[in-house]
Amino acid sequence: MQNRHLDAEERRELLALIEVLANLARTETLPWFRNAGLVADTKHSEGFDPVTQADRAAEAAIRAHLEQTRPQDGILGEEFGACASKSGLTWIIDPVDGTRGFLAGTPCWGVLIALADMDGPFLGVIDQPYIGERFLGGMGEAWMTGPQGRKALATRATTALSEALLFTTFPEIGTARERAAFERVSAQVKLTRYGMDCYAYALLAAGHIDLVIEAGLNPYDIAAPAAGITAAAGVVTNWQGGPVDDSGQVLAAANPTIHAQALALLRG
Amino acid sequence: MQNRHLDAEERRELLALIEVLANLARTETLPWFRNAGLVADTKHSEGFDPVTQADRAAEAAIRAHLEQTRPQDGILGEEFGACASKSGLTWIIDPVDGTRGFLAGTPCWGVLIALADMDGPFLGVIDQPYIGERFLGGMGEAWMTGPQGRKALATRATTALSEALLFTTFPEIGTARERAAFERVSAQVKLTRYGMDCYAYALLAAGHIDLVIEAGLNPYDIAAPAAGITAAAGVVTNWQGGPVDDSGQVLAAANPTIHAQALALLRG
Repeated sequence: MQNRHLDAEERRELLALIEVLANLARTETLPWFRNAGLVADTKHSEGFDPVTQADRAAEAAIRAHLEQTRPQDGILGEEFGACASKSGLTWIIDPVDGTRGFLAGTPCWGVLIALADMDGPFLGVIDQPYIGERFLGGMGEAWMTGPQGRKALATRATTALSEALLFTTFPEIGTARERAAFERVSAQVKLTRYGMDCYAYALLAAGHIDLVIEAGLNPYDIAAPAAGITAAAGVVTNWQGGPVDDSGQVLAAANPTIHAQALALLRG
Repeated sequence: MQNRHLDAEERRELLALIEVLANLARTETLPWFRNAGLVADTKHSEGFDPVTQADRAAEAAIRAHLEQTRPQDGILGEEFGACASKSGLTWIIDPVDGTRGFLAGTPCWGVLIALADMDGPFLGVIDQPYIGERFLGGMGEAWMTGPQGRKALATRATTALSEALLFTTFPEIGTARERAAFERVSAQVKLTRYGMDCYAYALLAAGHIDLVIEAGLNPYDIAAPAAGITAAAGVVTNWQGGPVDDSGQVLAAANPTIHAQALALLRG
C-alpha cells in the first residue's frame, strides 16, 4: 500500500540494496566481535570500546554506500544522527543492536536496517553476522536464511496467552510502572525469557515465539523488526495499541488475537 | 592428575570418542530444532514436545555408541538415568541443556558431554549444533571451533568485580534466599545478563565473560562446563567454595581473584 509509488524496477533495486548494506555491516562488525586482542593491541585501551568501533565502522560504510547510490534518500542512524530525505524515503540504521550482548560475546545481537516512507517502515532486515542468519520482510518478501537454509517467515497461530512464549529485555530496562505492566502479561504466559535483544523479534517473525514486550526503545531499534514482523503477519504497536511512537514502548505479537490479550493486560 | 592412569593411546581414543558422541548428538537434535512442522505432523500433537524427542534421541544414540565401544564405562544421563561404571570412568550426558531456549528457537542451548573419574569430571564438551560451535576442555586440550575457526580457550584476567560481566538464569530459578545472595553480586558487577543456559559457561571458558552464578542445577548440567572452564584456567565451585555438589549451587569464575570476590558476597 504505502509504497505503491515505487515501480517494479525500483522495488527490485531496493531489495538488492538492503542486502548489500547488510553485507557491508557484516564485514565491518564481525572483526570486532569476540576479539579481545583488538582491545589489548590498542594504545589507548582505557575506555576502548569494541562495540562502538563496530557500530561506527558499519554505519559509516552504509552511509558512504547510500550517498553514492541513493543520494536523495534520508538516513537516520544511531551513531551519526539524521540526514533529511529528498526522495520521501529514509533508511533507518542500527548497526549493532544489542551492544551489551555483543560485548559479552553472545550471538544474539544484530544489524538492523529499515526503509521507511511517510507512513513508516515498509522493509526491514535483521542480520546476525556471527551465525550468518538474515531475516528480511516487506515489499512482498518474508524469508530468512541461515544454517538450515532458506525458510519463509510466518508468525505463530497461538491464540491462548497460557500457551504463549514471551521475550523481553526486562528486568534490565523500563520504569517501575512499565515493569508492573509487563509482569501482568508475564504472569499469564507459558514462558518468559530474557536477554535476546533484536534477536527476539527475529524469532517472532520466524514463528518460534509469540510476544516481545519492551520499553525504552529508540526508533532505530524497532523500525526493521516492525517491518519484518508485519510482513510475516504479526502485529507491532505501542502499549496503547497505536503505531509505535516516541513512548519507547513496543508490543509485538504473532497475531491479532494474542496481541489483543497482551494489550488488555498492559493497559491494566 | 586424576587421569594419570590413562595411557597416551587411551587419552587419544577418549578425545576422539567425545567428539564422535557430540557429532551423534548434533545429528539427532538438529532436525527437532525450529521445526514446527514436526509438531503439526504428529498425530498426537497434544502434549507433543520436540525438545523431549531431541533429548531422548540424542541420549539413546550416545548410549548405544558407548555400549558398543566402551561397555565397561558408566553412564549418567538426564533422560535414561544411571548405569554403573566397571572401568572407573563415567560419561555424564545432558543431550539438550537449555530446553526452554530450545523450544523458543534461541541458539543458546547446548549438548553437554563430560567424562569423570572418582575425582570428578576431567573432560567436557559444550556443543551448539545450530551455530556449529564446539567448546572442548580437559586432558591438556582447551579449544573451541565455530564460524570464526579454531581458537584456544582461555579465561579473562579481570580482577575488579566492577569490571566483571555476570551471566545467570535468574530471575527464573532459585529460592528467595539464593536470589538475594545472587543480587549481592549482581549489584557490584558491570553488567548482568540472563537466559543463556549452558552457553554462558562456554562464553566464560572462551574469555568473553567473568562470572556465571546459578542455583538449582543438576550434576549433568555442570559436569561438562566445569571441565571446560577448569581447562581454560577458570574456577568452578559451589557457593561455599567447595567442589560442586548436590546443593545445585554453582559459582564459575574466570580466575581465582574474581572468584574470591564473588564468593565473599554470595556467603553474605
